[in-house]
Amino acid sequence: MVPPENPLSPEHETAAADRSPFSWIRERAVKREAEGLRRRLRPRIAGQDGLLDLAGNDYLGLARHPDVIAAAVAATASWGAGSTGSRLVTGSTALHEQLETELAGFFGTEAALVFSSGYLANVGTLAALAGPGDLVVSDALNHASIIDGARLTRARIVVTPHRDMAAVAEALASRSEERAVVVTDAVFSVDGDLAPLAELVATARSHRAGLVVDEAHAFGVLGRGGRGALDAAGLAGAPDVVVTATLSKALGSQGGTVLGSREVIEHIVDAGRTFIFDTGLAPGSAGAALAALRILAGQPQLAGRVRSRAEQLAAAARTAGLAATDPAAAVTSVLIGAPDQAIAAAARCAEHGVRVGCFRPPSVPDGVSRLRLTARADLTDADLDRAAVALGAVRELLR
Amino acid sequence: MVPPENPLSPEHETAAADRSPFSWIRERAVKREAEGLRRRLRPRIAGQDGLLDLAGNDYLGLARHPDVIAAAVAATASWGAGSTGSRLVTGSTALHEQLETELAGFFGTEAALVFSSGYLANVGTLAALAGPGDLVVSDALNHASIIDGARLTRARIVVTPHRDMAAVAEALASRSEERAVVVTDAVFSVDGDLAPLAELVATARSHRAGLVVDEAHAFGVLGRGGRGALDAAGLAGAPDVVVTATLSKALGSQGGTVLGSREVIEHIVDAGRTFIFDTGLAPGSAGAALAALRILAGQPQLAGRVRSRAEQLAAAARTAGLAATDPAAAVTSVLIGAPDQAIAAAARCAEHGVRVGCFRPPSVPDGVSRLRLTARADLTDADLDRAAVALGAVRELLR
Repeated sequence: MVPPENPLSPEHETAAADRSPFSWIRERAVKREAEGLRRRLRPRIAGQDGLLDLAGNDYLGLARHPDVIAAAVAATASWGAGSTGSRLVTGSTALHEQLETELAGFFGTEAALVFSSGYLANVGTLAALAGPGDLVVSDALNHASIIDGARLTRARIVVTPHRDMAAVAEALASRSEERAVVVTDAVFSVDGDLAPLAELVATARSHRAGLVVDEAHAFGVLGRGGRGALDAAGLAGAPDVVVTATLSKALGSQGGTVLGSREVIEHIVDAGRTFIFDTGLAPGSAGAALAALRILAGQPQLAGRVRSRAEQLAAAARTAGLAATDPAAAVTSVLIGAPDQAIAAAARCAEHGVRVGCFRPPSVPDGVSRLRLTARADLTDADLDRAAVALGAVRELLR
Repeated sequence: MVPPENPLSPEHETAAADRSPFSWIRERAVKREAEGLRRRLRPRIAGQDGLLDLAGNDYLGLARHPDVIAAAVAATASWGAGSTGSRLVTGSTALHEQLETELAGFFGTEAALVFSSGYLANVGTLAALAGPGDLVVSDALNHASIIDGARLTRARIVVTPHRDMAAVAEALASRSEERAVVVTDAVFSVDGDLAPLAELVATARSHRAGLVVDEAHAFGVLGRGGRGALDAAGLAGAPDVVVTATLSKALGSQGGTVLGSREVIEHIVDAGRTFIFDTGLAPGSAGAALAALRILAGQPQLAGRVRSRAEQLAAAARTAGLAATDPAAAVTSVLIGAPDQAIAAAARCAEHGVRVGCFRPPSVPDGVSRLRLTARADLTDADLDRAAVALGAVRELLR
């Protein structure tokens, strides 16, 4: 072996390659390949993509709205391409502050805080609201960002079966910890089903636990004018509930947010690691999100429209003879089975001009790989017809 | 107490407020206030800010470069305000792919992958490269995103004293785990000092450990034409080293990246949770980063310019009678002491027209609160004079 004082010799490079510390990755890749679980990036090509998009999360079709684009352009021209620092140093502009004010107003909370991604909003919020010696109760189908945030609390974590209220109550009642936080997606990202929010709020209250609700897939879709699932349950602005949401789905931009009492938000400014130690959201994305929020506030009918389109998509799948989940919001899943079948089904849809999501392990459990279809407020009847034809072809494929 | 079946009654709301699960936050805030550790957002105001900025991380001054702005605008107009989905569903565009190709080319690695933030790049990379049953060796002054990523591996973590090579070697030599990953910032974010990269590579190799190096503060500043600290050490493109970097500092945009062998990058596509489950970087930010990268590639002198400006800033602090760290890259820290003194010193700088960073616990240890000054390639001699006057005023304040 080459001595450490000569790390750059060619002999050493060769020796290093032979005994790479990452050689286990090759074996892992071979195993994934055999199981049909390799993932490959398929970049969209500008102007060469005539596919009907039922895969993206641009639920209200605002990512390409002219007012949203114009706002992103104006913000970039005025503030620059990046925010240049963390939110507490140079990364806060008047635009970030305005966005936070209007987000809080929309959701009916005292305050809001904007992160550079929804993933970081969940991680930072959870890690600031619970710590070692606390209990976190998390639904089994919560999003990866909630799982990572819960792990980073270093609290004891109880993962409860999906939507199992008795298990949540039991975890809270039997705890030895003084402090506890329950965390749930409002609408679960893969199946598109709804958390039992009224029951969760009541249970958390009766056991003096905090509740964190991620409105990522409900914002813009559920509640009065898209104010979210808590609003739909009559619980908007509850002082003991903390809300997270994303700016990258219904608002068609990038970023995430946490909303709650002023006290909680100020605490996250002081203690939220992913807030403090991350570069602030790019001004263009903040401007786009603000413009989209104003469009949503001015056109409350957008929320109802995306919900009815989602129901029509699920109905089309069932008419074709496929099993589709009930869409509580914009998402419906069409259950397929094995990963390779799901990939073939998605390819069949693409052949019929429709882009759909394809979810395999580890995004979903083994044996229930699926197509994930998302509705948009601006889908036309002709789009629905095209989707129905594609889903019929999937049914033929699976026979 | 109100029974759970009636969670919305006014009595229940009142009861809930009295016994809020977040009441501990108030006590925490009072304690922070007493210790001078509250943090407050101070948004920048458009057009009303004549301050000389020595706080941001826009090291090359590219966030407002006309070509970078124009590229962000063009990308937004062409692709929309958001990427509309995760990178593996709809969030990859041809622009993301081009950016990854050119980043890999610049750093001399086989491949690159772009995340929506540098924080998520570190978290996702580490959690994909180590797991339960492995060892992670992490420098005591590594960035929060590295610490969070290391924690999420659920590997055994050994935190080694800052830049202590013997401790790294000892942790690797004495391990019972087969697999180990060493992780370090190339340039440490607060003091701006450099990791001993050549020694780290040699040590990791001799103990068959992987090495992850975060070039966040070195990219654009160190190495040939700003190719980073590994390049400066003659180690660019080493097959057993994985590099992370940010697009939000020298490139003036938003986002992060991981660079390495094709095998490692494909593994992160398959296994990187913060890559798979996060909305892709906004097209405008991808476009801006690509334009900035091309400017840097075409103007290799930018890197040397920011380094000499940083040395001049540190010299100005010392001339004023203050203790300043040696800037290995763009950052120098001026040591102050107590948090309230550091705040007063930053305020004094602002009175003299200079914005500086102010770092207090938990960003830095107790007793060494400090001003953090960052150089930019486009600082003028007049800017340096202004900084010298402000630092002189700080010295007067501390007498």
